[in-house]
Amino acid sequence: MRYGNLLNPSVAYETWGRLNSRQDNGILMFTGLSPSAHAAASPDDPSPGWWEQMLGPGKPIDTDRYFVICVSSLGSCFGSTGAASIDPLSKDLYRLSFPRLSIEDIARAGHSVVESLGLSRLHAVVGASMGGMTSIAYSILYPQIAANLVTISGSARAAPFAIALRSLQREIITSDPAWKQGHYAKGKAPITGMRLARKLGMLTYRSAAELEQRFGREVISEDRLTAAQFDHDFEVESYLQAQASKFVGGFDANCYLYLSRAMDIFDVADHGGSVEAGLAKVGARRVLVIGIQTDLLFPLAQQQLIADNLRDEREVQFFGFPSLQGHDAFLVDMDRFQPVIRDFFDSGSG
Amino acid sequence: MRYGNLLNPSVAYETWGRLNSRQDNGILMFTGLSPSAHAAASPDDPSPGWWEQMLGPGKPIDTDRYFVICVSSLGSCFGSTGAASIDPLSKDLYRLSFPRLSIEDIARAGHSVVESLGLSRLHAVVGASMGGMTSIAYSILYPQIAANLVTISGSARAAPFAIALRSLQREIITSDPAWKQGHYAKGKAPITGMRLARKLGMLTYRSAAELEQRFGREVISEDRLTAAQFDHDFEVESYLQAQASKFVGGFDANCYLYLSRAMDIFDVADHGGSVEAGLAKVGARRVLVIGIQTDLLFPLAQQQLIADNLRDEREVQFFGFPSLQGHDAFLVDMDRFQPVIRDFFDSGSG
Repeated sequence: MRYGNLLNPSVAYETWGRLNSRQDNGILMFTGLSPSAHAAASPDDPSPGWWEQMLGPGKPIDTDRYFVICVSSLGSCFGSTGAASIDPLSKDLYRLSFPRLSIEDIARAGHSVVESLGLSRLHAVVGASMGGMTSIAYSILYPQIAANLVTISGSARAAPFAIALRSLQREIITSDPAWKQGHYAKGKAPITGMRLARKLGMLTYRSAAELEQRFGREVISEDRLTAAQFDHDFEVESYLQAQASKFVGGFDANCYLYLSRAMDIFDVADHGGSVEAGLAKVGARRVLVIGIQTDLLFPLAQQQLIADNLRDEREVQFFGFPSLQGHDAFLVDMDRFQPVIRDFFDSGSG
Repeated sequence: MRYGNLLNPSVAYETWGRLNSRQDNGILMFTGLSPSAHAAASPDDPSPGWWEQMLGPGKPIDTDRYFVICVSSLGSCFGSTGAASIDPLSKDLYRLSFPRLSIEDIARAGHSVVESLGLSRLHAVVGASMGGMTSIAYSILYPQIAANLVTISGSARAAPFAIALRSLQREIITSDPAWKQGHYAKGKAPITGMRLARKLGMLTYRSAAELEQRFGREVISEDRLTAAQFDHDFEVESYLQAQASKFVGGFDANCYLYLSRAMDIFDVADHGGSVEAGLAKVGARRVLVIGIQTDLLFPLAQQQLIADNLRDEREVQFFGFPSLQGHDAFLVDMDRFQPVIRDFFDSGSG
């Protein structure tokens, strides 16, 4: 594949299950901003994946039946080429010389994997969050390939509130003096900026109601309180600190910036002049759209809009779940997600 | 007044209107986190105040009829003693040696003004946002003074989501290397941290629906775009930048930290063991509670809870407005706020 000024970019992926003789049981899966292609355990990597409860033998996306390909997004830092990869021409990291990344680029990179596996059709393309956007883009760019589309907590285009929140996260990172216009050394990454951006992310990925239920106004135990002014008082602060610490160090700051902006600039209306015209180009004939009532970042109305505009000439299932967990519910609220996704794939013709 | 280790703290205030012969037409007003005591124009300072449309001759809070006192919060940086004030003992700024500030401290400082004016009763105590919290605290601490209470977009205690957002704002400021543990020099304040914290604040003060209506996905005009990677693309980003720039420089970072935390640690339950018991101590007999359906930070349910718990033995009016402007609606949505506040004060017995 070609992509901007990149010379032979790589696209990392993992697979589960086996291709059937008709070669029509493939499922292409795109991820959210932060995960790798390791959606579930496999013989090569038995560690649990980010969608372990959804993907595997006998699970809702049943790898006894389907051949699942999860791609690491182009531009991220888990094997696919991104800003943290070596530019083979300069022998240095791409950093900000990496070209402006779009959701469509990530979709095209995913398709290069499909082609390299020799597949000319797929049972489905699936994704949540940024992956939901990418799955829609894929079904527009390659309308003949995937018969089914699953888009979870995605969007046809970001609302200004989501843009503003992500823009602020990026500015928090680029304002960290350690960022150095993207030229931070290994081991000297802008971890303060990344930690703060991740905390803001967490607050938009979950919901106020969940925090209320889990933490209320519980204060940190005496022995964990520090004497420092303006250190943490409440358990909810401690929770965010722990979550952010898990993230920081594992994700490259420049890659984060590229992927974050890709979500802001994605607009289905670029494919035909309006969101309606763009969605009309979606090739999938069966579509599952799921959203969450408490999602601040990809609000339910955006899922409803996708479903409403796909209904002509397609079989569309739409669910708006009342999960407490907000945008991240697809990772957590298995009681609601598993049956609906299982049913969609069980009743498919793959 | 005495407050912590402070020697003779000052409390700045402004007044409008005249005290009547019975000395019972006083209205004490507390502000939100960021405003000064300059709520409206006056002969001494004819510049427009932050609640200009609400306060003045013939306005909803009618200064032809009431004697209005707006106090600058203790701990802020507009005349009342705060972390940016000179400690008369050390002759240096208090900075972080300023004592831990509570909403009750701000209420007590307000009462010291009432006492210094020789008033033994007030027609009302009024406040919005942090001022709503402070007004409730005042009516609990001084139950015999104010016959009426107006609390707008306040809270009996902050929810963990609001705590987390404010905690993150504080951490953004204290993570700015220019903060220097509070020891920044004049002209070298942590303006980057303050700018980012203010942007996050703006996103919690307004609503997603308002940003959608005002900005949509409008992009910045060609001539204002910069070539820099990860600079702004959208008008909504440009709006936040302009708003934050207005704030930064005018507000002291340490004062911001003290006031922000005061909101987190405020808990009506500290006055009697539970929110219900605390609110039962509110002395006002007539209460107006207003909240906004789109408020993320002080959600409507918190206003409803205040109103529900005050209803016994008091005349309570409760309004939940559908204003697009979120938490800040009291500053903007005059079509809804003016008639309700006018009616409350017109029908009062002051």
